[in-house]
Amino acid sequence: MSIQLPRGTQDILPEDAAIWQYIEQVAKETCETYHYQEIRTPIFEHTEIFSRGVGDTTDIVQKEMYTFSDRGGRSLTLRPEGTAAVVRSYVNHKLYASPAQPTKLYYTGPMFRYERPQAGRMRQFVQFGVEALGSASPQLDAEVLALLIAICKKLGLVNLKLVINSLGDSESRQAHREALIAHFKPSIDEFCSDCQMRLEKNPLRILDCKKDREHPLMATAPSILDYLNEESRAYFQSLKETLDLLNIPYVVDPTLVRGLDYYNHTAFELLSTAPGFGAITTLCGGGRYNGLVQEFGGPETPGIGFAFSIERFILAMKAENVDLPAPQSLDAYLVTLGDESSRLGPQLLQRLRDGGIRADKDYLGKKMKAQLKAADRYQASYTIIIGEDEIAKQQALVKQMATGEQTVVAFSDLTSFLQEQIRGGN
Amino acid sequence: MSIQLPRGTQDILPEDAAIWQYIEQVAKETCETYHYQEIRTPIFEHTEIFSRGVGDTTDIVQKEMYTFSDRGGRSLTLRPEGTAAVVRSYVNHKLYASPAQPTKLYYTGPMFRYERPQAGRMRQFVQFGVEALGSASPQLDAEVLALLIAICKKLGLVNLKLVINSLGDSESRQAHREALIAHFKPSIDEFCSDCQMRLEKNPLRILDCKKDREHPLMATAPSILDYLNEESRAYFQSLKETLDLLNIPYVVDPTLVRGLDYYNHTAFELLSTAPGFGAITTLCGGGRYNGLVQEFGGPETPGIGFAFSIERFILAMKAENVDLPAPQSLDAYLVTLGDESSRLGPQLLQRLRDGGIRADKDYLGKKMKAQLKAADRYQASYTIIIGEDEIAKQQALVKQMATGEQTVVAFSDLTSFLQEQIRGGN
Repeated sequence: MSIQLPRGTQDILPEDAAIWQYIEQVAKETCETYHYQEIRTPIFEHTEIFSRGVGDTTDIVQKEMYTFSDRGGRSLTLRPEGTAAVVRSYVNHKLYASPAQPTKLYYTGPMFRYERPQAGRMRQFVQFGVEALGSASPQLDAEVLALLIAICKKLGLVNLKLVINSLGDSESRQAHREALIAHFKPSIDEFCSDCQMRLEKNPLRILDCKKDREHPLMATAPSILDYLNEESRAYFQSLKETLDLLNIPYVVDPTLVRGLDYYNHTAFELLSTAPGFGAITTLCGGGRYNGLVQEFGGPETPGIGFAFSIERFILAMKAENVDLPAPQSLDAYLVTLGDESSRLGPQLLQRLRDGGIRADKDYLGKKMKAQLKAADRYQASYTIIIGEDEIAKQQALVKQMATGEQTVVAFSDLTSFLQEQIRGGN
Repeated sequence: MSIQLPRGTQDILPEDAAIWQYIEQVAKETCETYHYQEIRTPIFEHTEIFSRGVGDTTDIVQKEMYTFSDRGGRSLTLRPEGTAAVVRSYVNHKLYASPAQPTKLYYTGPMFRYERPQAGRMRQFVQFGVEALGSASPQLDAEVLALLIAICKKLGLVNLKLVINSLGDSESRQAHREALIAHFKPSIDEFCSDCQMRLEKNPLRILDCKKDREHPLMATAPSILDYLNEESRAYFQSLKETLDLLNIPYVVDPTLVRGLDYYNHTAFELLSTAPGFGAITTLCGGGRYNGLVQEFGGPETPGIGFAFSIERFILAMKAENVDLPAPQSLDAYLVTLGDESSRLGPQLLQRLRDGGIRADKDYLGKKMKAQLKAADRYQASYTIIIGEDEIAKQQALVKQMATGEQTVVAFSDLTSFLQEQIRGGN
């Protein structure tokens, strides 16, 4: 039978799982320091959550979703991103009614997009993201960016480029939208069919098109920054000043857009500039979405968030030669000699483990030499040897592998002896 | 628009997420003490992984799977359980070829079954499971059970009942199978259509039927324990002796079966006996599957594992009135007075957070009184007050909320002061 993985998915084996655990732990702890708390939403949602919440005109919704009917005939979709579901949950549970605002949330888990798989782009990938809902302060935008940069720093990522832009408020966006239509309309026949459709529906997304990126009209397209009204300009200025205050470097790129109607003000991307990182340099994207809660039937509520791909973070960490964590090695390996020792092995092992000692023994009936070899293979700090003599005397021979030092320890003292040796520094 | 969750799924909000994190952390740490390491497999697999790996005649495969075609026409299925995919991965990556055997793995993540939702039974639920592959020692069966019991103990679950049985080796199972057919065949018309189909295909599964459980032939069905050959009997005896040695109580129930052809020897279930736990009392199921690796094209390799539902563990912990962890409270809340203080707030906050202090501030432009109220709401251990005077003097007023004690601290000493106060005991 086929034992292959579905295309675009991967297994994470123990050696790599240690890296994943580490990144998730660092991200989680940093979020908690910033007073963000975890939320978990289901793997699938009613399809309209995404067609509405991500946007009908996006590639994600048009081409990349895993959509299927359940046995009851409902259209369900594996989540392609995290924001829509978090906002759906925020509205569902009326979190906006809590006096504790803004509501600051983080999430992590698998997302699904049917794309052509390549390095850093899988059909199942894992995102870590945050969403902060309920405040329209540019200081919150700065906080979200500071949190992102703090996570990167702790993970040892230093070759980073933070790109920011402002999409303005809805008045500014409307003025810019008209300018874009006027700019592209006379030559729209030269653009791809997607862009032709976008012209009236969502012209901002033309700037995001991968097919038409070389068209000369792209470079001369009107910049949103020239269409910001006074309030939007002040908002962006305040964000930039706060970032300066926090010593967070950034560059402004007026072509950075997020094409959904309810996105506004701040948009940003974090890129890796590490040599050898590869073609896809975006580590993280995010922005402010002040209309999304309303789209899901909640009250007018501002929001901002980002999401990064853990796969790409790992690629970036490798490109920067960061020391990656390995699985924890064993504290002790129990070597048994003879039938009675083998029979009693599980009991001694259980005492050690109950005391928090990471310990193991042989389960293949191996001879002493092969058991000692296993202890080496697992890089056990201590080997505990028990033969007939030791059982008669109720004591074990404990060997520290690094020094070769051997100590005879009574069975009853074994756990505390090892606890002291291992946790007591030594 | 519909903002509802798909039926049978749930959001886990921050207050509950802390409980989930706690259970996962305890289970993970216990696994690592027992030398089990994490593996992660995709959310979906090629459908035949489950039709073969779980079994064509099971309810899961026949009625409960979320199966769909991707845009390339492949039949994919959201994983209904964890073992088949872990074994697929074990074969895929030739983990059997590693000299480090047995291969001891754990996993956690969402699983999906289209069932009628009720308390403790969701369409998306989270399992934590372990699989130990590559040893046929009954001591390994005992280890797996000891690990399960150790996790329960650490979580405060005490009202437990461990039920074990032996299904014997293939010779014993064949003898039992013939006896079952002889027993049921004359009256098979009185059984449901599923059971009629199972009679020749897999008569053991008749014992598992929910519809026919009251039929008088059920109670008199031949017991597997009467058909165990000598080797199987010795295996089961050794397991029971090792459990006795480890002080793990159990009861033997010869009607406990796992109906797949490649299951053999040990089968077990862990039940909650906590009053008020509800109708579904099974917390965890598991057993030995010495034929599954071969089913996936690998070499003959024994395996054993279990999986428990985190949802049911939480229900059991609540039924036992275990103290459940709450989200971590804030270390410090920053209160700003005046424009300059508000402008500089993010900088002070960043210094605290960089120092590992869980800190937050207002993002809604609230007055002092409302800011102090927020500090209370978040149960901040310290409130840091900064007004014009404080900025002029570059110092903050720090108030310990539990005692009301106030201290004036220079901005430059603020982080180290709080670190000492908070982490230094006090």
